[in-house]
Amino acid sequence: MRILHRQQIENLLSIPDMLEAVEQGFAAFSRGEAIVPPVVALQFDNPIGDCHIKYGYLKKGKYYVVKIASGFPDNPQIGLPAGNGLMLLFDKNTGAPAAILLDEGYLTDMRTAAGGAIAAKHLAPKNVSCIGIVGTGAQAYYQLKLLSFATQCRQVLIWGRNSSKAALLKNHPDFSDWKIQTTNSLEHLTANCNLIVTTTSSHSPLLFARQIQPGTHITAVGADDAGKQELDSELIARADQVIVDSRSQCLRFGNVSHAIKEKKIFPEKIRELGEVVIDSALGRTSDSQITIADLTGIAVQDLQIATTVFEKAIGNCGFV
Amino acid sequence: MRILHRQQIENLLSIPDMLEAVEQGFAAFSRGEAIVPPVVALQFDNPIGDCHIKYGYLKKGKYYVVKIASGFPDNPQIGLPAGNGLMLLFDKNTGAPAAILLDEGYLTDMRTAAGGAIAAKHLAPKNVSCIGIVGTGAQAYYQLKLLSFATQCRQVLIWGRNSSKAALLKNHPDFSDWKIQTTNSLEHLTANCNLIVTTTSSHSPLLFARQIQPGTHITAVGADDAGKQELDSELIARADQVIVDSRSQCLRFGNVSHAIKEKKIFPEKIRELGEVVIDSALGRTSDSQITIADLTGIAVQDLQIATTVFEKAIGNCGFV
Repeated sequence: MRILHRQQIENLLSIPDMLEAVEQGFAAFSRGEAIVPPVVALQFDNPIGDCHIKYGYLKKGKYYVVKIASGFPDNPQIGLPAGNGLMLLFDKNTGAPAAILLDEGYLTDMRTAAGGAIAAKHLAPKNVSCIGIVGTGAQAYYQLKLLSFATQCRQVLIWGRNSSKAALLKNHPDFSDWKIQTTNSLEHLTANCNLIVTTTSSHSPLLFARQIQPGTHITAVGADDAGKQELDSELIARADQVIVDSRSQCLRFGNVSHAIKEKKIFPEKIRELGEVVIDSALGRTSDSQITIADLTGIAVQDLQIATTVFEKAIGNCGFV
Repeated sequence: MRILHRQQIENLLSIPDMLEAVEQGFAAFSRGEAIVPPVVALQFDNPIGDCHIKYGYLKKGKYYVVKIASGFPDNPQIGLPAGNGLMLLFDKNTGAPAAILLDEGYLTDMRTAAGGAIAAKHLAPKNVSCIGIVGTGAQAYYQLKLLSFATQCRQVLIWGRNSSKAALLKNHPDFSDWKIQTTNSLEHLTANCNLIVTTTSSHSPLLFARQIQPGTHITAVGADDAGKQELDSELIARADQVIVDSRSQCLRFGNVSHAIKEKKIFPEKIRELGEVVIDSALGRTSDSQITIADLTGIAVQDLQIATTVFEKAIGNCGFV
């Protein structure tokens, strides 16, 4: 059994290989080739926190994954990151532990950003004029980083409530040759960007139907739990294509769940990202459409990213 | 974060400390001081196998536990044990991983046997004339080993379908100063033993009401999943005391669930082992009673045994 620490994992992860694996994971999921039971969780008081356990496998795969991720919002007060996590891979033929990936949440951040890049690949308009990033946390950084694999555009507008965090992201050395500006106006962002990613933990809508220009694609990754919402239900209703990662999960939470509860859209309108990966005709069909990808995160992403890292580790063991 | 391997774990585990911790865990559970959501599982075909995830914490405790245990019955054909498992402890205040216990199922075996020893401590008759062990697998060994902490009796009858496995257990060096006999007759065992532990994976009853002598205590640990059953429902109905580890779980599976479905007993008759730990007047009250403990396993046992090992490891780190 291999135990991999964060720095090793960062060094081992091939982003193109991972994007390919996660994309194929979405497709397998939508073909019904994945076993992904509902997420389970523990909630804590005093201090407040939560722990989510995602687990599953591909019927044709070699491994099953168990991912344990925690969020303790008071951690930064004692100098710790709010999020933490690890992934375990087990041999699907014997149950033997194959790898423990002590990634501290890095792989969750990356596989979530991979969802954004894959959605952009299939749903963004041909010519992205400017990328809009809503939010300034870690996921804003990762989304931007992986979008570079899905679009040539290097022009970015960042919106955030915290201007110093927005400035930190704008000045991150990874983006030194990008043209990044910050704004405190969502109207300004929506008027100028046709590929928008929302990455906040907002509990009320930030983007509304009246703001969005024709030809815009929006990926929303923040509403990953009950009660969270970044996109107004009228905006979901107005979109020409509404894509989710998991139909069953997005009926329970995420932006689309609100729109369905408010009867702004019917479940029949929703398609899965994996269906679009399999048949691109189900995605964007014109440059004037508004498309939305509402991604709540599925264990297949965890499985695929963990497998990518582990197989690189065992294939290159002389160098690790 | 500490990573502990099986041999280290075996060396670190203090059985008396663990029995005390698990006993207090049962009590805390029955006082409503534990958060233990229902077990979740993955099932596999080709080869057949399963993986169970148990997780939880004590409200006043330091850690939360996630236990991942697998069973792949074809493993022995390729020289691997059927069962495997590991436990993870996380800091309940921050979510940070505290320890990974790569125990390969050893701690599950031990905490299950601890349940048997704790049940025997509170429910066995004062004078145990002979211990009856039904089954010859690993759990039969562990039950016998830990019963030595709960009774002075060293006289044992072992029943099993596989006489060579029964002989192996009888001749195990750990029991060299015990008086152990094997039998292929359950009638012989029930006629001679007044502390019986059933440890099989049977799907149909092995012990029946007509066989059991007054003054006998029976602990059943084999029926840990849907469909399994070791004790006939009439026997459950005849018992003076029916004790379970978790009332809610034992309504879903275990021997008692069958008796309830068949309306042989009412749920009101059932008490929890933790209630008996708290108030011994709820346990055996005379030497002629028949008592039954139906133990399906709860995450609090995993939490307590993992915590016992980990705290020994950090307290004695100079010696590990």
